[in-house]
Parts: sequence; structure tokens; C-alpha cells
Amino acid sequence: MRIGVYSIEKSSSGFVDGMVKEYVKQASRYAKLEDIVVFNKEIAKAQTVDALAAKEAYTKAFEPHMKGFCVALDVQGETLESTSFAKMIASESDIRFFIGGAYGFCADFLTKHQKVISLSRLTYAHKIAKVVLFEQIYRGLCINHHHPYHK
Amino acid sequence: MRIGVYSIEKSSSGFVDGMVKEYVKQASRYAKLEDIVVFNKEIAKAQTVDALAAKEAYTKAFEPHMKGFCVALDVQGETLESTSFAKMIASESDIRFFIGGAYGFCADFLTKHQKVISLSRLTYAHKIAKVVLFEQIYRGLCINHHHPYHK
Repeated sequence: MRIGVYSIEKSSSGFVDGMVKEYVKQASRYAKLEDIVVFNKEIAKAQTVDALAAKEAYTKAFEPHMKGFCVALDVQGETLESTSFAKMIASESDIRFFIGGAYGFCADFLTKHQKVISLSRLTYAHKIAKVVLFEQIYRGLCINHHHPYHK
Repeated sequence: MRIGVYSIEKSSSGFVDGMVKEYVKQASRYAKLEDIVVFNKEIAKAQTVDALAAKEAYTKAFEPHMKGFCVALDVQGETLESTSFAKMIASESDIRFFIGGAYGFCADFLTKHQKVISLSRLTYAHKIAKVVLFEQIYRGLCINHHHPYHK
């Protein structure tokens, strides 16, 4: 089982990277969990133009990675409890989560995903969403494997 | 304005501490944001007995700190958007957030708060809830002071 988390970020935070690495390591007994960071000159340039250009650049950067069961993160998406989140990842062998950049996603790009979920009604900074998602994936794997972490 | 975040934790994570310190520093222009960690022998012992004993020990440890506008975090609490969260903290000068230990809170203790909120329908690890809360407080302060961080 492989779970990929695709995100767009220009620069990373050492603290976030540290937490992500911890979850990747802990999850390794259940799944190959990967942190894939995408950033390029087109995104950097588009972000200085406007929101639409930025969103289109995110779509272009992410589209080649869209295989398997694709889940986008969007504040307007479906809110789940941890047990439903766990069920969602239980039956797939190639799951890919996509976290948008500073301007979110095009509506059109969201329709290409099998699922669009929201981590919270609160708006999270990109790095917070990333940490929350990694913990939730690890929690979901523990629930599915009856590991006591989630108790 | 002072905002205190009271949490129960036996040992801390360097990555979480690092992120919390960043938000405390960034928030300092708007509020005195404080991270108060409570842990004692009674809590350690109670957690080996059962959930009820643990919850009672959390209540006992937190009660002396209950002043001002008190907000408890509970997965069954009210879910807010970031703008409502910002409004909640806009008019108070002494705000205190309480994050429970591994077993959550007694229902009785929750009724003593002005507000009980949920960060998400997902269950978060204690350290994740803490990071999310600190970012949300900083975001709320930025919204209230028209700082562009939240855009």
C-alpha cells in the first residue's frame, strides 16, 4: 500500500518536516507513506499574477501525479470523523492526497478527484494542514490495523 | 490582552514546542500568548487507574486556572470557521483555552466554560490539537487586526 501526500510549497519548516518524518516512520509498518513537495518557476510566477493563474499552475503541476484514488483537500469539502477517514483509506492500494497552494484549487480540478475532504471548518495554514493530514493518515492506519494508538 | 493555552502533557515534542514558540513570537505584537503545561503526580497516577479518575485529576489541576473567558476543546464541541473564532477572541482581555489530557474532560467540567469548541470532527493527537489551536489564535489576531497573514 502506498499513500502519497502532494503539496505545493516554496520553502519548508524544519518543525513541520520533523513531525512529518516521525509519522512517515511510524506508518512504515503499514504503508509506504510519502511526502512529495512540488514547486516550480511557473507556480512562483503565476502567484505574482493572480489567484486564477496560481490555481491553474497548481493544476498543471499536480495533473501528472493523478493516478490511483485521488483525494483533494478543500475547506468546502466533506468533513469526516477519524473512523470514516480510516475507512476511506482501508480498501485502496494507491492513495494520493493533494494539498493546494496559497490560493486553493480550481473548481474544475477538484471534480477530477474521487473525493474532496475538509480537515476542519477552520482555515489552516498550509503547513498545519500538512501536519494534521499526516497524523490523520497514521491514525487511520492504526484504526485499520487495530493498533492502540488511536484509543 | 492575554491569551493562555493550558494543556496537560507528560512530555513535550521539540517540533511542537518549536512551532508553538513561533506563533507566540508572531502573536506578541497583538497579545501576550502563553503556553502553560500542567502535569503532576496525581494525573500520572489517575491515568493508570481509569478514564474517570484521569478526567477528575485534569479538572482538579485546571480549576485553579479558571478565570476570565474560558474555552474548552472537545471533539463534540461547536465547530467554528476562522472568522467566528476571531470574533470570539476579539472582545475579551483574558482568554483561557483548556486542552484535556488523553481521556478528554468530565461533562461537568465542560459546563463551567463559557464556550466548548471543536477544532475538527476528526480526532487529533494532543500535540496536533495544540499546534492547530496556536495557529488559529494567531490567525484570529491577524483577522482582528487586519493583518494580511490570513488572506
